[in-house]
Amino acid sequence: MTNPSAPGSVGLVTPELLSFDTPLTLASGRTLAHYQLMVETYGSLNASKSNAVLICHALSGNHHAAGYHQETDRKPGWWDAYIGPGKAIDTNRFFVVSLNNLGGCDGSTGPTSLNPQTGHPWGASFSTLRVRDWVHSQARLADRLGIEQWAAVIGGSLGGMQAMRWALEYPTRVRNSIVIASALKLSAQNIAFNETARQAIANDPNFHNGDYLRHNTYPKQGLAVARMIGHITYLSDYVMGQKFGRELKSGSFTQGMEELVEFQVQSYLRYQGDTFSEKFDANTYMLMTRALDYFDLAREYNDDPVAAFEQSQCNFFVSAFSTDWRFPIERSREIVDALIAARRPVAYTEIDSPYGHDAFLLPNEDYQESFTRFMNTIEI
Amino acid sequence: MTNPSAPGSVGLVTPELLSFDTPLTLASGRTLAHYQLMVETYGSLNASKSNAVLICHALSGNHHAAGYHQETDRKPGWWDAYIGPGKAIDTNRFFVVSLNNLGGCDGSTGPTSLNPQTGHPWGASFSTLRVRDWVHSQARLADRLGIEQWAAVIGGSLGGMQAMRWALEYPTRVRNSIVIASALKLSAQNIAFNETARQAIANDPNFHNGDYLRHNTYPKQGLAVARMIGHITYLSDYVMGQKFGRELKSGSFTQGMEELVEFQVQSYLRYQGDTFSEKFDANTYMLMTRALDYFDLAREYNDDPVAAFEQSQCNFFVSAFSTDWRFPIERSREIVDALIAARRPVAYTEIDSPYGHDAFLLPNEDYQESFTRFMNTIEI
Repeated sequence: MTNPSAPGSVGLVTPELLSFDTPLTLASGRTLAHYQLMVETYGSLNASKSNAVLICHALSGNHHAAGYHQETDRKPGWWDAYIGPGKAIDTNRFFVVSLNNLGGCDGSTGPTSLNPQTGHPWGASFSTLRVRDWVHSQARLADRLGIEQWAAVIGGSLGGMQAMRWALEYPTRVRNSIVIASALKLSAQNIAFNETARQAIANDPNFHNGDYLRHNTYPKQGLAVARMIGHITYLSDYVMGQKFGRELKSGSFTQGMEELVEFQVQSYLRYQGDTFSEKFDANTYMLMTRALDYFDLAREYNDDPVAAFEQSQCNFFVSAFSTDWRFPIERSREIVDALIAARRPVAYTEIDSPYGHDAFLLPNEDYQESFTRFMNTIEI
Repeated sequence: MTNPSAPGSVGLVTPELLSFDTPLTLASGRTLAHYQLMVETYGSLNASKSNAVLICHALSGNHHAAGYHQETDRKPGWWDAYIGPGKAIDTNRFFVVSLNNLGGCDGSTGPTSLNPQTGHPWGASFSTLRVRDWVHSQARLADRLGIEQWAAVIGGSLGGMQAMRWALEYPTRVRNSIVIASALKLSAQNIAFNETARQAIANDPNFHNGDYLRHNTYPKQGLAVARMIGHITYLSDYVMGQKFGRELKSGSFTQGMEELVEFQVQSYLRYQGDTFSEKFDANTYMLMTRALDYFDLAREYNDDPVAAFEQSQCNFFVSAFSTDWRFPIERSREIVDALIAARRPVAYTEIDSPYGHDAFLLPNEDYQESFTRFMNTIEI
């Protein structure tokens, strides 16, 4: 069904699980004595180790950003449109490192991992995480790979928050920060949507305060509703209209019928919610949305993003999408304005796209062109 | 706490329960042999019965649109800002009729009423309803009150859909149709939000497929999440930012704390969800959101709203609010464009307001002025 050997594809890839035994102190004050990170790489590290780029994933992403795990995979990694030979993140030039973040549910240490002290899964007792915790663990990963300085740290949405935090936490270790469809902090509306999603999960009687694995069950319905909320807000009103309009699943709308009408958008949403809830961990969803809510780049800089960015030493590339209402263009302009005021080099593009927040994942000629042009300016 | 005798207030009011024994055939094909409607009136019907106006409520509204039931009431009726002596809907001129719609949960026949054939509450077995069913039952109410023709039928949101449907179903019985913050039909995004809300209710283990009353329980948590989704979408991003920003409930954000941070918007939303879920019926919420989803003014007119409005004989007043993203200005412009193409008299105002969809309920000088001006053109 797929063609891993097609031009532009990184082809078949194999993730690797790396173990870390130096304790990592988290923003919560707690310490992880040991942890593992699931990692994929594409391309080759050059002799001077100057061509490595880090991909930071968003809410529901993982390490599998490009290529295929098996010939039979129906879909490639989540950012395959932009990672590969000749693509924006050109694997002929760059050594691309992509990981499942700490707290994730795709192999890295997280709520589904066993707590060595109890022998049971961490569940809800896994530490809350901040974006900075991911950045610190990613720095350990860089150390392990012998990468002193990233050519670029790249991410969209929650991933863009990591790219910004990198520039402040390790100013000498990143030459370019690429921040796509992101924000200095979430708006109250964003927090409200996340809170509603968490509430839907917490209300599920199978949630058991996060200890569902010990009860051999799973809050599938709650997570499905959470995902439905997310899915609506990541798409634009326009694209939902284009995709579904008010089309009926049955294709008819008989006057006088008693059974319930079902619109296509309803069955689509239920399907999206159901499939997501079968493959994603509910505690990870709680943890990731909380990290999103907590993130506030300038909090420790007297709420002054200019002062925050003055800590950075890298170049920035910022990109936003016209119909993204969850991370609207205004939020990216705030980033750019602060960077300019901090006298930091920044390239900025606003991309016309009907696809809402999801646009950062999807093929788009203008986006690809500006993204590629910026990546080509990076000397390696 | 209140002042029912303040100028501009209709004062203390008493609802009345009216019984109807002529069977009503519904759009679902089912027939209600008997039904009751809870009704409030303000002002006096004149001798020629030419000064009656009908108020149509929205999703969670009821008959109590103005004034107070008791001296101790903390709040007046839901549209008290616009109904009263000297207000836009001036009770010195108009006889105002306001009812709880069929299927409601504030006294009119609905899912919480007893099914006379079983002796148990209807619950989920209560018929689905369309906007036209409400219009038909409201026409019976007009008959009962001796009102041959309404001076105006007035509503916001789902209420505006009733005001439009009235103009098509009973063209000779309405002189003015007042359609505020409404739409010819919902967008796919709107349907998707409603579906997610219904899913949250249906997932609640206390829902019992809608027969929770027979199980002596109530899907409080599911309804609370449904209301949270609604509440976010009825407010603008801006006003949520103004109201809550990212303020923390505790007032501090200690680095290194382990307990969960709670933003004020979270506790506000939970409070809203909780209080709503204590007073509103879950089946009614399902029924009302479905009526919203089904509504499509032009469906029986070959999807041509111009052909639809050509059935009408009344004047129209249409109003929309700048930050309403659930029923955006574009939807109201579609109504106005169709009315103009159908050569129907229409006055239209776009009101600047930061309050999103909720703006139609809230005091606003421009809105009040244009609304009042239009109401004053109505001859009685």
